[in-house]
Amino acid sequence: MSQSTPEPMSELKTIPIAYLVQHVGRTVQILGHVLKLRTGKAFSFIECGYGPTQVQVVIRSEHVTGLTVSSYIRVTGKVKPIPEGKYSQLPVEIEGHKIDILSLSPDDYPSICPPGSGPETRLDRRHFYLRDPEFAIITLIRSQLIQAIRAHFEQTSCTEIQPPMFTGVECEGGATLFGLQHPGKSVSKPMTAYLTQSSQFALEMAVPGIGDCYCVAPSFRAEHSHTRRHLTEFLHAESEWGGILKFEDHLDKLRQLLRGTLSHFLRIAKESLTKLGCFDRVSALHAMTDDIMVLEHKQAIVECTKRGIFKDEETKTPFDERDDIPEAQERALIDSIGKIVFLVKFPKEFKSFYMGLDPEDQTRVLGCDVEVPGVGEIIGSGVREYDFERLHQRLLEAGLKPEDYSEYLDLRKYGFSMTSGMGLGVDRMLTWLLKKDSIRDVVTFPRFPGYLRP
Amino acid sequence: MSQSTPEPMSELKTIPIAYLVQHVGRTVQILGHVLKLRTGKAFSFIECGYGPTQVQVVIRSEHVTGLTVSSYIRVTGKVKPIPEGKYSQLPVEIEGHKIDILSLSPDDYPSICPPGSGPETRLDRRHFYLRDPEFAIITLIRSQLIQAIRAHFEQTSCTEIQPPMFTGVECEGGATLFGLQHPGKSVSKPMTAYLTQSSQFALEMAVPGIGDCYCVAPSFRAEHSHTRRHLTEFLHAESEWGGILKFEDHLDKLRQLLRGTLSHFLRIAKESLTKLGCFDRVSALHAMTDDIMVLEHKQAIVECTKRGIFKDEETKTPFDERDDIPEAQERALIDSIGKIVFLVKFPKEFKSFYMGLDPEDQTRVLGCDVEVPGVGEIIGSGVREYDFERLHQRLLEAGLKPEDYSEYLDLRKYGFSMTSGMGLGVDRMLTWLLKKDSIRDVVTFPRFPGYLRP
Repeated sequence: MSQSTPEPMSELKTIPIAYLVQHVGRTVQILGHVLKLRTGKAFSFIECGYGPTQVQVVIRSEHVTGLTVSSYIRVTGKVKPIPEGKYSQLPVEIEGHKIDILSLSPDDYPSICPPGSGPETRLDRRHFYLRDPEFAIITLIRSQLIQAIRAHFEQTSCTEIQPPMFTGVECEGGATLFGLQHPGKSVSKPMTAYLTQSSQFALEMAVPGIGDCYCVAPSFRAEHSHTRRHLTEFLHAESEWGGILKFEDHLDKLRQLLRGTLSHFLRIAKESLTKLGCFDRVSALHAMTDDIMVLEHKQAIVECTKRGIFKDEETKTPFDERDDIPEAQERALIDSIGKIVFLVKFPKEFKSFYMGLDPEDQTRVLGCDVEVPGVGEIIGSGVREYDFERLHQRLLEAGLKPEDYSEYLDLRKYGFSMTSGMGLGVDRMLTWLLKKDSIRDVVTFPRFPGYLRP
Repeated sequence: MSQSTPEPMSELKTIPIAYLVQHVGRTVQILGHVLKLRTGKAFSFIECGYGPTQVQVVIRSEHVTGLTVSSYIRVTGKVKPIPEGKYSQLPVEIEGHKIDILSLSPDDYPSICPPGSGPETRLDRRHFYLRDPEFAIITLIRSQLIQAIRAHFEQTSCTEIQPPMFTGVECEGGATLFGLQHPGKSVSKPMTAYLTQSSQFALEMAVPGIGDCYCVAPSFRAEHSHTRRHLTEFLHAESEWGGILKFEDHLDKLRQLLRGTLSHFLRIAKESLTKLGCFDRVSALHAMTDDIMVLEHKQAIVECTKRGIFKDEETKTPFDERDDIPEAQERALIDSIGKIVFLVKFPKEFKSFYMGLDPEDQTRVLGCDVEVPGVGEIIGSGVREYDFERLHQRLLEAGLKPEDYSEYLDLRKYGFSMTSGMGLGVDRMLTWLLKKDSIRDVVTFPRFPGYLRP
């Protein structure tokens, strides 16, 4: 096919596939995996790729003897513009002169985790599923969503903090805490460390010196939940804002967070969202952030009854005014409303001791759960209790030991920065944005009961 | 002092301190902590700040009665340019009309963790030490170093991955692994999860589909080390690069990483490094990346003997050619050389089973530890073994079970992308850059034996 004499090997440059367009007319080398291989009588066609970029190689069939899909190869050839009207990821292709097989794959590769494999195969063969073109894009988009979250925080003068994963105190929610043995001061006296469930306390401690701050870090829950929304290890974006004097200030921060993040996301991930066919959907969800419904818990109870959502479906028992709405019914309500909902002002009895009280009704707290159709809660948030005495009292009422929270109490004692904060489940948000059925469809290496490998 | 009538409260805007310059001549409100308070007969001076920004408030002394350092306040006042020649962080000050104390601090605050406190106080009162102006800047700089690392990887087309913290297999280095109980498929059968020591395997699994990739994530070591360089939880920046066909390709990636990261760092952190008085030092270290010494392990042994660094100082016993050089002597060597050193080609018996063999001497591996004066090793790295059979054999020789590494073996079996990779200890790097004595001086919430709180 090519009549040109290859240049001597020593002078050949290895070019990343994405940069081939800058080398039209030159003989180069590329490295990549065989993604597709079509062998004809005289010529063969190889789709050769590494990561997100691919190029077609056209080469005499005698050079592809023994070649298999998934093998890692070096191609020597000339970069040529592709003929008018031909579809390809790049506007160039390679007229191949030579192929070196650097790592040969057995020929059963295509059957190991083919497109459309079931959920079990996609989990057990995660290291192969990561090569699935759609899942590779989702993995890239996940990284871009995290970039968008960071971009929003940087733009709003929040400083990134790296919170510790180990905590020494068995905080609230002890039942779902992971504990482990950690070295103590002396070898003979190990201590128990717990894996963090939230970095809120670390952020709160950083606020007075650092100012508004955030983190994107793992959190852990030792729950025996096999649902499509739960993981034992999840990526948690959390932030803490100072100077929140009214509940409305906090809700504004949340509105800005959703709008800002989605706006950065649409910009950063435009190409990959388009490839996945999700750009229009995410644009529509971004528009939805201009029409968020703020719904007080007691109104939510009324709405449930109005919409035929019951505490007990069988007996048609309606919720009482101070009932905690369980996950299933809450999701039914949000799906029925069809908007992003800020669910606010919960009865204090089922929320954490550190949530600020509603000045208009001291039996309720200034919490806000952000709920989205199809997925449910993606953010838990609230204004913090600012008063030392009241926080101390509420710790006791919750059956907790104030000495375990002495640093947290100190924050109120020595001039509290009047903060509020939030925790966003990054993977739940992504499940919503990409309209996926399960959180396991978007997490690179999901961890849940019975599943720790690969 | 001010003759102007304050505007009605309802019209007053609360302005972040950093933006006050845009409001000269207006009456505004600001929120912040009292950092310093100097009370005179007629007028008082308050340094009021939130996070990294501060402004001076001048106010009639009758308004500051009962005010204490660290209290969180709202100041109403007029923004005025500061008089010519007066030093201040901002070119404006506030002519205060009114102060509302939102959260009053007891007056013992200044003695709790004053500047110059000892290491114990700085650890036990970390939540106060985080307000120390110097430590607050270090915390900001840590975040900026991480930004710089990410910027380098983004610029070199590496995709960010979020690796799992839980692994299901007790990998090599079992003695320093943290284990814990994790829910199994059924409630009655929990399983053991381990905390990751390195995300290398996760990155390697991502490479074929995602391409070059990196992560910045915690890693864990259950070591009983009380040294100034060890933590049980540390921030690990790791990357994996495909298409590494020669050892020199790998060393080039490391050179680019050091140069690129420091160059982004100098740009992103210029202001904060200058404040800390470290900008010139970091600039000099950046220049040092143009003169990196590549030192083979066997040459290092020769250098040790030449420089009077012994295996046993007492008996003056020199190292043998294949000895592992312990930490103390290695640091003495690097300090004596006074350059960034790429220590390469170690005897394979003391390095991991997955390191590629040196084609020129199959008893040595293509590993590279990056060593810096004053701190020692900040990066461990190497070319990966690419051959399935050899990797399988080396697993067995290391006493490991190949079935525990089946996914890792699969990577070699089904077309290996010929990778190399590295793991950078972010906090060690920062200790070096800021010329600190201990890693505990740069980590926001350090974790080491006996220390899990706050």
